[in-house]
Amino acid sequence: MQGYTPGEQPQGGAFIKLNTNENPYPCSIDVLEAVYLALARGLQKYPDPMATTFRKAAARVHNIDPDWILCGNGSDDILTILTRAFVGSGDLLRLPTPSYVLYKTLAQIQGAQSEEIRFNDDWTLPPEFAASRPQLKLAFLPNPNSPSGTMVAREAILDLADKLPCPLLIDEAYADFASFNCVDLVAQNEKIMVSRTLSKSYALAGLRFGYLIAQPQIIHDLVKVKDSYNCDSLSIAGATAAINDQQWLAENVAQIKATRQRLTAALAELGFSVLPSEANFVWCTHPSQPAQPLYAALKNERILVRYMNYPQWGDGLRISVGSESENMRLLQTLARILGVKLR
Amino acid sequence: MQGYTPGEQPQGGAFIKLNTNENPYPCSIDVLEAVYLALARGLQKYPDPMATTFRKAAARVHNIDPDWILCGNGSDDILTILTRAFVGSGDLLRLPTPSYVLYKTLAQIQGAQSEEIRFNDDWTLPPEFAASRPQLKLAFLPNPNSPSGTMVAREAILDLADKLPCPLLIDEAYADFASFNCVDLVAQNEKIMVSRTLSKSYALAGLRFGYLIAQPQIIHDLVKVKDSYNCDSLSIAGATAAINDQQWLAENVAQIKATRQRLTAALAELGFSVLPSEANFVWCTHPSQPAQPLYAALKNERILVRYMNYPQWGDGLRISVGSESENMRLLQTLARILGVKLR
Repeated sequence: MQGYTPGEQPQGGAFIKLNTNENPYPCSIDVLEAVYLALARGLQKYPDPMATTFRKAAARVHNIDPDWILCGNGSDDILTILTRAFVGSGDLLRLPTPSYVLYKTLAQIQGAQSEEIRFNDDWTLPPEFAASRPQLKLAFLPNPNSPSGTMVAREAILDLADKLPCPLLIDEAYADFASFNCVDLVAQNEKIMVSRTLSKSYALAGLRFGYLIAQPQIIHDLVKVKDSYNCDSLSIAGATAAINDQQWLAENVAQIKATRQRLTAALAELGFSVLPSEANFVWCTHPSQPAQPLYAALKNERILVRYMNYPQWGDGLRISVGSESENMRLLQTLARILGVKLR
Repeated sequence: MQGYTPGEQPQGGAFIKLNTNENPYPCSIDVLEAVYLALARGLQKYPDPMATTFRKAAARVHNIDPDWILCGNGSDDILTILTRAFVGSGDLLRLPTPSYVLYKTLAQIQGAQSEEIRFNDDWTLPPEFAASRPQLKLAFLPNPNSPSGTMVAREAILDLADKLPCPLLIDEAYADFASFNCVDLVAQNEKIMVSRTLSKSYALAGLRFGYLIAQPQIIHDLVKVKDSYNCDSLSIAGATAAINDQQWLAENVAQIKATRQRLTAALAELGFSVLPSEANFVWCTHPSQPAQPLYAALKNERILVRYMNYPQWGDGLRISVGSESENMRLLQTLARILGVKLR
């Protein structure tokens, strides 16, 4: 087994990091205050196993009851809990391709099979994604998708869930940057579950906090599978403060979306094909410049982007939306590498 | 499946908590400073997936190389990673009984069987613990054991590992309170692995940090099974500071051991049978007073201890070693409940 390789994480700060879709801005100041207070209260006692304060706060934001929420040590923990709960050895897990590579790894760790259904050229999903198959136990659908930044419509998701013989996890890691989300669909079909992370839109990748929204009877069963104390006292305090500061979120997301628009336009001006993105990254390819040497040339200039290569689909660059100044540095460097002028 | 039920964790502080073996004292001040600095550096970037700073610090303490260490989100995460890596559906996991109930739950989640080998009356293990069985893939041995606080000798562990057809995890959650440990045995037999937690002896239950010591080729393979970013930036910083402050550890452990001695003597004076403990808790039974009502009476007085009942073995109270004042409150309350006088 090969395992999942996360994006490069050079520690220090010598690089402009546009490779793992981190938020370029510091989190809400309320988070720092909440963590500081939790620290002052002491760390010798175990945390609340259910992270009740966070569940209550997130329930208010999503207008649901707290017992529809399960907290995790990042949304990777949520994906792991779901896979361990639903997918046994010899079972089948379904995912779209090109998509988040980790899903396949999770199936492998369980000794399970995975089935990849290719997106249509317009980034909708073919009916095969909902087809019955023996041993099919769980389907993952990132929405917005990575690396494409595209979305499957709500009506299509309802239709898929209706036909699927198993639960469907909508991975909404990037949903705060999108024009819609599927949280309210969870009440419409118990097969639909939604995962969220605070890593991207709340600028808390370092804190490790994510959560699942599902119907209460499912949450109740998943609690038996998670580690007893999967979230620590400091992250529970910080995450609660973060989700309570919806004004910070709105302002941050507005800034990222504005930068995303400028980035998309400028990359097109440099000759790239850029998919319109609903996330905090863009997927781009160049008609004449191969992607891998561009990645290497940028890395040489201390700018990290993500080079991705999907068999039977192709390769390209996934570039995170950084700060305005990081964006400028990226575009100027790309212009120099390509020998073209930016307006 | 029933799932593992952790000890009661009332949030707030209205109880004297002597039920989940937390350290009664605040952690080293260096931890607070390190977390505060990490907070100031910002949380928007992902943490180091391998927690390199901690591995280097722990390697110095244990006099091994950093590539013998794998970090986890508490030692529960380490136990989960090991079970997922070694024990598949239909396989067998071995554990002693009475012991840590979570081990069985981990096997159940994998769709695996577990086999409980009863301790001998003198808390040694019978030869059956090392016996070959089809599908036996992993054995767990807590040392010191919970709830008994007893230990299996190093020579016996080397002998067990030698005969076992599978890896043997020595769960050393409480080893800092004991008179010996097995870290150096890992180099003598690659089947021997040791797990540690910072929850107990470093007073960091709220931080969630544990680690595994195993030979490098095993660590290398386990990395593929863990969540990519299983430890967050704040806990890595705090845990590194904690393990670097060995003077704090020595002083804290000395204090807990002194209180443990007084607690053991006083409980005996109150008429309890108390096992000599090598951990930060004691196991006690009373020849005439049933344990369950004693637990309830203490809870009624806002003192939480752990009532445990093992089928085919018996029940009793596991009482954590608290601070001197908590200890005094416990003993005075027990004396009152039992209607006896404490000297």
